[in-house]
Amino acid sequence: MRIFVDAMGGDNAPKEIIQGSVDAVNEYHAQLTLVGDESQIKQMLSPMDYPKQLIDILPSYSVIDFNDEPVKAIREKTDSSIVVALDAAKQAGPDSVVVSAGSTGALLAGGLFKLGRIKGIKRPALGTPIPTKNHITLLLDSGANADCKAEYLQQFAILGTIYYQNIYQQKHPKVALLNIGTETEKGSILTKEAFQLLSQTNTINFIGNIESRDIMNGKADIIVTDGFTGNIVLKQLEGLSNYLLDGLKQAILSSVRGKIGGALIQKDLKSFKHEFSSDEVGGAPFLGIRGGLIKAHGSSKAYAIKNAIKQAIAYMDRDIVEKIDNTINSKTGSIEF
Amino acid sequence: MRIFVDAMGGDNAPKEIIQGSVDAVNEYHAQLTLVGDESQIKQMLSPMDYPKQLIDILPSYSVIDFNDEPVKAIREKTDSSIVVALDAAKQAGPDSVVVSAGSTGALLAGGLFKLGRIKGIKRPALGTPIPTKNHITLLLDSGANADCKAEYLQQFAILGTIYYQNIYQQKHPKVALLNIGTETEKGSILTKEAFQLLSQTNTINFIGNIESRDIMNGKADIIVTDGFTGNIVLKQLEGLSNYLLDGLKQAILSSVRGKIGGALIQKDLKSFKHEFSSDEVGGAPFLGIRGGLIKAHGSSKAYAIKNAIKQAIAYMDRDIVEKIDNTINSKTGSIEF
Repeated sequence: MRIFVDAMGGDNAPKEIIQGSVDAVNEYHAQLTLVGDESQIKQMLSPMDYPKQLIDILPSYSVIDFNDEPVKAIREKTDSSIVVALDAAKQAGPDSVVVSAGSTGALLAGGLFKLGRIKGIKRPALGTPIPTKNHITLLLDSGANADCKAEYLQQFAILGTIYYQNIYQQKHPKVALLNIGTETEKGSILTKEAFQLLSQTNTINFIGNIESRDIMNGKADIIVTDGFTGNIVLKQLEGLSNYLLDGLKQAILSSVRGKIGGALIQKDLKSFKHEFSSDEVGGAPFLGIRGGLIKAHGSSKAYAIKNAIKQAIAYMDRDIVEKIDNTINSKTGSIEF
Repeated sequence: MRIFVDAMGGDNAPKEIIQGSVDAVNEYHAQLTLVGDESQIKQMLSPMDYPKQLIDILPSYSVIDFNDEPVKAIREKTDSSIVVALDAAKQAGPDSVVVSAGSTGALLAGGLFKLGRIKGIKRPALGTPIPTKNHITLLLDSGANADCKAEYLQQFAILGTIYYQNIYQQKHPKVALLNIGTETEKGSILTKEAFQLLSQTNTINFIGNIESRDIMNGKADIIVTDGFTGNIVLKQLEGLSNYLLDGLKQAILSSVRGKIGGALIQKDLKSFKHEFSSDEVGGAPFLGIRGGLIKAHGSSKAYAIKNAIKQAIAYMDRDIVEKIDNTINSKTGSIEF
């Protein structure tokens, strides 16, 4: 297995990316290639304690940032860390995976151009694992395709099922369709049509519609939606959690009584925040791309990067790409259900 | 002004609806008509303390519930509280308003059939006031139209502006388009087209795209979106707030130290919950309907109903229907900007 880590992508690059990579090497004995500014990486690595033979450096000379138009950036910034990592992964063969906290759009465009999609895949989907009540719920598509057809959503459900079965060891993961009502006839033209298709798909365990108010209750293992709605949900989850916890903190700190109480609950609050932190779940895979491509959160720190690398290892170890290929193209070893 | 309150709609009807109505009568000296089961209402009203001449009862004999198919229910349940209230409002003339915590779909269908839309209105929108940081943000459409065209979103922005100017006394309320990125070129086919139309609309103060992670920061006065996305956002706001606050409570109660701390912060927590409670903001108007139609939250208790009635009074006092008509049809008194 070859793991290429984009050392330059994300808000905290390269420092936290390098630290997270070193932690992953120490914890999982993984062999990594860091892609990025060679002298900066060398300098940061030099005082760190890890088996030196397990990390090598692949130099790149520019960075694609969040403001770059993705397709244009992939075409033009050929010496950027994302493009260099993807080219190297392509060349290293099917046992390669790329991990990046960089631009989602650029990763998708780069993945499609450089690695391509698995035969039969209509649209690759970004599947984001969300920590819900005692559970992980996979939300897909969470941002790769702003405009979707019902048949894409049907395929997302199959991609999500394969991923969930193999990564979370659950035989019949429950698939729900994100909708604005639980009744069959509710929703938009898209969700009504998708509901019909999902009901007819016998390789998934479709449990019907789910409303956004119930996402966190953990009743669905996989939630299927278009990439516009999925991205809205994901970012609201992030924004609202921060808003509520910050607001709560301020309310508490506004009184002496509250300050004392706040000090006493600090530990519990921390463990609770930890429970639903996206840092725990690692990265989000682009399901349907012909190769491993894992997106870490843009604001990832070392701990989240380490978990994203762990996720990348599991993704490759469990042959997700091959299993998707086999299922979509009805080869032997297709989805068991 | 004639105010018709659907006494039978919502999870806590008729008890909390009647209590909220009595509170509104006592606080605002409003004259109300309660529509519903006459004997039940009479029985509940009898021990209550309020000027008896200010509440009368209009009997209805069935209830449209959340499982009824809206259009069918409006056509067939002609003696239901929603239909009786709307018929009475229609008959009482343009100075009438209906308040209900019943089914959103049935209220929209009923509003369209019985009251009609204001001339020139493409689609009426449900505008939900959300308590954000030191602020009220109006989210529309929050559930009336699952499938929208860009020109509907453009009109929603105008409807929202008229409402916001008149209810919150702000001359140039800031309008943002809910999107999956802040850059101009981001989004779905719908939001890209809507962005162009909104940019060209000189009767609104368009500030560009807003991401769902920034909804709560209060930077936008009005957030425009399609009814599918708006409903997803609204229900996630509700579900996630409950999930986080419940989870926090449980985390705190799991240790003795936490329990003591929890007791100390209880007051601050309560005031914080209060701050962003939807009970405070009253109901959500169906903007574009030819008449006042205010939807209260399905789970409303007396306090929320009282505030929805307050909202209904303001809606009529400030002639929102007439102002929308004037603006959309470019009569005198059109939107000042």
